[in-house]
Amino acid sequence: MSDAYVHGYDPRERARLQDQAGALVELLHSDTSYPPGSSVLEAGCGVGAQTIPLARNSPGARITSVDVSADSVKEAKQRVDAAGVTNVEFRQADIFAPPFGPESFDHIFVCFVLEHLSRPLAALTALKGLLRVGGTITAIEGDHGSAYFHPDSAAAREAVRCLVELQQTGGGNALIGRELYPLLSDAGFDAVRVSPRMVYVDSSHPDLVEGFTRKTFTAMVEGIRGAAIDAGIVTPEVFDAGIRDLYRTAERDGVFCYTFFKAVAEKSLSHLAESPD
Amino acid sequence: MSDAYVHGYDPRERARLQDQAGALVELLHSDTSYPPGSSVLEAGCGVGAQTIPLARNSPGARITSVDVSADSVKEAKQRVDAAGVTNVEFRQADIFAPPFGPESFDHIFVCFVLEHLSRPLAALTALKGLLRVGGTITAIEGDHGSAYFHPDSAAAREAVRCLVELQQTGGGNALIGRELYPLLSDAGFDAVRVSPRMVYVDSSHPDLVEGFTRKTFTAMVEGIRGAAIDAGIVTPEVFDAGIRDLYRTAERDGVFCYTFFKAVAEKSLSHLAESPD
Repeated sequence: MSDAYVHGYDPRERARLQDQAGALVELLHSDTSYPPGSSVLEAGCGVGAQTIPLARNSPGARITSVDVSADSVKEAKQRVDAAGVTNVEFRQADIFAPPFGPESFDHIFVCFVLEHLSRPLAALTALKGLLRVGGTITAIEGDHGSAYFHPDSAAAREAVRCLVELQQTGGGNALIGRELYPLLSDAGFDAVRVSPRMVYVDSSHPDLVEGFTRKTFTAMVEGIRGAAIDAGIVTPEVFDAGIRDLYRTAERDGVFCYTFFKAVAEKSLSHLAESPD
Repeated sequence: MSDAYVHGYDPRERARLQDQAGALVELLHSDTSYPPGSSVLEAGCGVGAQTIPLARNSPGARITSVDVSADSVKEAKQRVDAAGVTNVEFRQADIFAPPFGPESFDHIFVCFVLEHLSRPLAALTALKGLLRVGGTITAIEGDHGSAYFHPDSAAAREAVRCLVELQQTGGGNALIGRELYPLLSDAGFDAVRVSPRMVYVDSSHPDLVEGFTRKTFTAMVEGIRGAAIDAGIVTPEVFDAGIRDLYRTAERDGVFCYTFFKAVAEKSLSHLAESPD
């Protein structure tokens, strides 16, 4: 199934996701808090990297976190239990065939998932069916085309392009952050509000130099070396020069920029007639 | 003189600068306010597009605005007078040979100027000599490499690349926004703090669609059509397709992103020994 994406199997990818969650929790999560008693679906929880901050910021809400991979769900549950978070229930489930009735949730949260799907619009439409009228959906995605840096480097841009291309070959879209507004609008949500969350890194922010430039972004690009070379879309020389140049941006006089996009939208009464349910 | 840049002669460029000032004043200026009685140098005022918001946000400060072009200074003065702003004194002056004694100013403000200079570091070093110890410098610059959009378009990226290349050929640097941190640090300023100011435009912001995507950014790129084609760096077909695709990002489902960078830094006592004066 082309829309299946299993998050968190590769240990390197898992470590990356953990670093990313640590450094970026405040930037991405701090303004999401659901009221006590509300029911929230986290669609595509992976190994739970976002589940812990999500649940901690809404301690009175009842979170249901699902992922298509039973192994990821199992690991997510272990991590959430180990963190002492108790308001999350896990379930293996496919976003495209969810085992929930229409309008089962007050709110839906989807983070770093749409980028991996070949049919993100269909996923959002399916999720909309699960949302009660008046409820909200929150979507967070990165956008690898938003990465730029100093010193600029054609090789580094090539390495990043490989990441974008491989994700596209796999049916995903590494540039989806910038598309959240049209996607949510086209899925029939209302009052779509997108707020970019830019990560700006210079050497006055040593935590971000380490946690984001090196360990999150550059490590992620470095992780596709074999796949990119095997796919014949880059030479080892150019790729390796690109990685060197990405690490170069983490030096004293380097700068690195990347932007995540967070969107919040509503399901309003006016769209009931168009609802796919 | 390669560092000479005369802002505001081309009527199209002037109209662009006015639109830009209107739409972006709040984003770029709102957090800059100098105390009553303080003396502020605006280095490179052009035709005064930034002078008016600068002076209005610091009504008790004494602003001295200079530009290398006597004609620009004359026009800036007319505009500032017409706006009823009274706390600005104008003077024709070269940033690299300023007619002011050392440590003449409490604060320095420089906006959309460094991008046009072949020696921005030398300019900042010269300006530092004019600043009293304990004073601040504020620098604001765009970064044309920060532009990305939906739908993505190779032709539109090519058109933007032409703008970057022409500015480079002219001795400037259209990617200077991302470099403010190393530039100010290398010029010997302390406590350099850079804050990106991203302009995110989707159709829920019709004022920005019109004022920024269409009338500021795309109009600016469109304005270099002749120069880019004459320079042989693009074909008319590709350039025109790029402009069409840039306007396309202003449609209902389009998205446009651009980032300005604002830096504030201090001249501290510890650097007196290294001062160029």
